[in-house]
Amino acid sequence: MQRIGIGIDIGGTSVKMGLFQEDGELLYKWEVPSRKEEAGRYILEDVAASILSVLKEKDINMDSVIGAGLGVPGPVLPDGYVGVCVNLGWRDINPRQELSRMLGGLPVLSGNDANVAALGEMWKGGGKGYSDIVMITLGTGVGGGVIINEKITAGKHGLAGEIGHIHIRDEEQEVCNCGGRGCVEQVASATGIAREARRKLAAVDTPSRLREFGAQVTAKHVLDAAKAGDGLALEVVETVGRYLGLLLAQLSMTIDPQMFVIGGGVSKAGRFLIDVIEKYYVEFTPISEDKAVIGLAKLGNDAGIYGAAKLILG
Amino acid sequence: MQRIGIGIDIGGTSVKMGLFQEDGELLYKWEVPSRKEEAGRYILEDVAASILSVLKEKDINMDSVIGAGLGVPGPVLPDGYVGVCVNLGWRDINPRQELSRMLGGLPVLSGNDANVAALGEMWKGGGKGYSDIVMITLGTGVGGGVIINEKITAGKHGLAGEIGHIHIRDEEQEVCNCGGRGCVEQVASATGIAREARRKLAAVDTPSRLREFGAQVTAKHVLDAAKAGDGLALEVVETVGRYLGLLLAQLSMTIDPQMFVIGGGVSKAGRFLIDVIEKYYVEFTPISEDKAVIGLAKLGNDAGIYGAAKLILG
Repeated sequence: MQRIGIGIDIGGTSVKMGLFQEDGELLYKWEVPSRKEEAGRYILEDVAASILSVLKEKDINMDSVIGAGLGVPGPVLPDGYVGVCVNLGWRDINPRQELSRMLGGLPVLSGNDANVAALGEMWKGGGKGYSDIVMITLGTGVGGGVIINEKITAGKHGLAGEIGHIHIRDEEQEVCNCGGRGCVEQVASATGIAREARRKLAAVDTPSRLREFGAQVTAKHVLDAAKAGDGLALEVVETVGRYLGLLLAQLSMTIDPQMFVIGGGVSKAGRFLIDVIEKYYVEFTPISEDKAVIGLAKLGNDAGIYGAAKLILG
Repeated sequence: MQRIGIGIDIGGTSVKMGLFQEDGELLYKWEVPSRKEEAGRYILEDVAASILSVLKEKDINMDSVIGAGLGVPGPVLPDGYVGVCVNLGWRDINPRQELSRMLGGLPVLSGNDANVAALGEMWKGGGKGYSDIVMITLGTGVGGGVIINEKITAGKHGLAGEIGHIHIRDEEQEVCNCGGRGCVEQVASATGIAREARRKLAAVDTPSRLREFGAQVTAKHVLDAAKAGDGLALEVVETVGRYLGLLLAQLSMTIDPQMFVIGGGVSKAGRFLIDVIEKYYVEFTPISEDKAVIGLAKLGNDAGIYGAAKLILG
């Protein structure tokens, strides 16, 4: 009998789910909307109902399901407890326990969504073949996940991998969402890159193709212009790459992974961006000739379901 | 039959050794000089001979020895290989394998000395009762060790825990021993604190009891003067505490330990210094109300033999 693991990635808009073979082959994936009304109370019920319905439709017996893994968009304590999950409206809940109950006692394990995505990338994505990676997701914000010996390092207060909120830039004056100032996210997220470009456009009057976008300039505009050789855009990319290279150096001298996997929308700039990050990473790690590999994520939006399945498939 | 583990801590001047019960009680400790001539080739022989002699003297049969743990003052790869150990003159050696051979095949495990000391502090020192700690040793340099789930995080290139060489201060102009600039060690080691004081004494002409020491000012002078309320010394301590608080915040948002254990000569300043570090640690972690505990190391120079014994006692 073929045995199955279920990967579930709960997001603020939709819940992605997948059925996986034990060897990690994705058999089927689907999604349902995240119903956030009434403090998100229907989300897990919807997930459970949808899983039971898909298993029935696929003629898969519950006996052949090993269990389910669950990625949660917020801090998760070691026992699965979630104090607050702002994105879903959840408070004071143990989603792992609740979903297990709704699925007739099926084993369910859970983790923070960014950590779970990192596990997925290690298993079947950009970090395949490595056991120790840090994933850095450059999207609207900056997320991260630390994998050591093929396991998520979740931390004791649900904070591990929150590398987007490491203070890295002393001169930053604006306040970050987290309440701090000078966070990695403020300079290296898509939002941060766009802001950096706006600041530079306002500060100097050198010609730049970015001027036509004015206040509407995006990270993609910046990266595309930089690739095309635009001087001002290149300066922005150097700034972003410097802080990311510094971050990677800090991470190397803390946990020393084999590889850094860069994902998220900003990473679509590809090797061009990685090369700038790597230049500064090398500059900030004179202590050793042996460097970690820096590469791109490969699973895109599926990283979460892969990682969630890996949680339960072990 | 009482079973024994041996803890060995190799330093640049002497090798410390201890016999431990399985429960971690230290039965006997002693040391031998580190013979560094001829690229340190006699060090392990001396250690093996000394262990055999002490076991004989104590009438302990080799059958009751579980094994030995070994702390090495340099980078150690996962299989025990040491490429270069500047402090001892070693090159291209696997000390764990060699010592095992010299002790008739006794199981020997090894690790970097700072990492091993961190394990010792977790087991029986300032971090007792916790499974996830980071130890920060403020001595002539700044060392560190990362313990997750009661195990050393050694990293894949022997760099994990090298937190003294994290770049933290952009405006630093002097070059660190590692070849970088603005390392934690340059501001928070005993040497760094003294330099910071010299710089401040030169930069301003406010009265300070530190002036009498001139270029001979030490970290201890600074910390003592700060405790006594000396304004200039207090400013130096604020600078040091700010960068250490920032370092701890970075570590929390990477691996999120339960506790930070502060050791080394500088930590003799005690709670006074911890309070300043903690103030800035809180400032740099607005993301969460849940903070790690910050406390003092307790085992002093014995941390290494405790940790080495724990390596082999598991």
